[in-house]
Amino acid sequence: MDLKVSDIGEKELVKYIVDNCKDIVFDDAAITPISQNKELISTSDMLIQSKHFPKNMSYFQMGFKAVTVNVSDLAAMGAKPLGFLLSIAIPKDILVSDFKQIIEGVLKACKFYNIPLIGGDTNEADEIIISGTALGLNDKETSLRKDGYSKGDLICITGEIGLAALGFNLDDDSIYVKKALEAVAKLNEGIILKENGATSATDITDGLASELYEISKDSYGMMIYEDKIPISEEYKRISKSLNLNYLDLILHVGEDFELLFTISEENLELIKDKLDFIVIGEINDSGKIEITLNSGKVCGISSKGYNHFK
Amino acid sequence: MDLKVSDIGEKELVKYIVDNCKDIVFDDAAITPISQNKELISTSDMLIQSKHFPKNMSYFQMGFKAVTVNVSDLAAMGAKPLGFLLSIAIPKDILVSDFKQIIEGVLKACKFYNIPLIGGDTNEADEIIISGTALGLNDKETSLRKDGYSKGDLICITGEIGLAALGFNLDDDSIYVKKALEAVAKLNEGIILKENGATSATDITDGLASELYEISKDSYGMMIYEDKIPISEEYKRISKSLNLNYLDLILHVGEDFELLFTISEENLELIKDKLDFIVIGEINDSGKIEITLNSGKVCGISSKGYNHFK
Repeated sequence: MDLKVSDIGEKELVKYIVDNCKDIVFDDAAITPISQNKELISTSDMLIQSKHFPKNMSYFQMGFKAVTVNVSDLAAMGAKPLGFLLSIAIPKDILVSDFKQIIEGVLKACKFYNIPLIGGDTNEADEIIISGTALGLNDKETSLRKDGYSKGDLICITGEIGLAALGFNLDDDSIYVKKALEAVAKLNEGIILKENGATSATDITDGLASELYEISKDSYGMMIYEDKIPISEEYKRISKSLNLNYLDLILHVGEDFELLFTISEENLELIKDKLDFIVIGEINDSGKIEITLNSGKVCGISSKGYNHFK
Repeated sequence: MDLKVSDIGEKELVKYIVDNCKDIVFDDAAITPISQNKELISTSDMLIQSKHFPKNMSYFQMGFKAVTVNVSDLAAMGAKPLGFLLSIAIPKDILVSDFKQIIEGVLKACKFYNIPLIGGDTNEADEIIISGTALGLNDKETSLRKDGYSKGDLICITGEIGLAALGFNLDDDSIYVKKALEAVAKLNEGIILKENGATSATDITDGLASELYEISKDSYGMMIYEDKIPISEEYKRISKSLNLNYLDLILHVGEDFELLFTISEENLELIKDKLDFIVIGEINDSGKIEITLNSGKVCGISSKGYNHFK
């Protein structure tokens, strides 16, 4: 009766909000019609120092990431960036030079993604909290949705995954740590996908498994193949040395900000010269989400992704 | 050299961001052209439990207020509401029933202002943090700006001010406490003002004095009159009993969410039947912001409003 939020987890909290609000369109970002042929794409993500920023992340990187996480949701819809709003809270004893580094990161990211910083708010809190809102525009009904695919469509990713997941466990100058601290949203890739017939897209922030479940729909299934996912021997070796299962890292952590998308074989030919991507599987009608391991064994994939409050 | 943010204050932090960003249009909310005849109005405000929510504020009231503070910036631009995004962080040991109360407050406010809740984010933090983004639409170049007035325009407010300021110092069931805990944004009033020739508007969130400075521009001045501002004997008596200066409360606290606006005498006639308002002064060319006290004495008004970090 006196349930605490830690007893039920983040997904239940979000479900409560969505169930009680008929207005929410549940995709990577909100879609709001604003004229006969345009729709506004908007998304808000809040980052909290103790939860989202690794100890070895610089102030500049925090600011950059706050923009990236929001722009990534625009990318997943194939939206063109329109503006970014920054609400930031900082402890009162933080150095002004450190505050300026955060803002440098935000401004550098805004420039990188060509999304103007248009407003925001500053506040005091016990730790750094950066809440961003990214706004984008799409021609009406051309937004990339999560579930437009058909049987036979190929399942693809825009780049290697799992690197950030490993990087969060390291503290060196490896590519893994760089990916964990300096991930980049695939904004242009999203626009190319939208303009070339991709049938769905989403960003892989909560891990591949969680996102496959996110795009799943009744009477369809998905098969992905371990041997199609690039996993280096070094990656396996470092994972093992940290006592981590490399496939768990790849399936269940995320934070790479690559896009997961589906597309017909025919349209895949069209984007071959425009985009780097990796085909990792296909849509079928099994009703199950599965992986074929290198051993030939087929395993079900659980949806276990990242969950706050637990 | 090692300046902390508490040494320089919030206005300097905001100034640093604005100075380093050519994209920010500095009004009550951001104005972004999105088509030949429409502009998007967007604004983000973050509320933090220990800083913004009085101890006697209910969870429902916190949720409602998070919408109000954002919608109030739309009101000040005369914008029509388009959508609201909610990013909320809560401690993991908060009761689910209390979380639901916050969301009830948000949803009730969204319904009240007729602004759909379209998305957001949930997170864990040590205290309750609610960051909202309100989106609105305006026909191009009809947004109410802060500084469109001319000499002779009247300075008006949409209702009594200072009530919330007093209420923050009380813990009873008076109208003052009610105003402090359940302020309401003047959304429809803003639209009426825009459509009937108001020459500027802003919401009085940081106190009347601070907002007069906010709308001030070179070679103009302002005179307001104590005897035109409604201040009851009860108000003066309670302020005195709390050892507070009643005029300080009215000039320097804010949080009433009334609109401060300017309008020509001619247009004032037009809105008389459409809107409640109080004329408190006029625009002149003195170059000073002053108040004529009941005693007849004319005093300069300082800009001292509310400032975080100090």
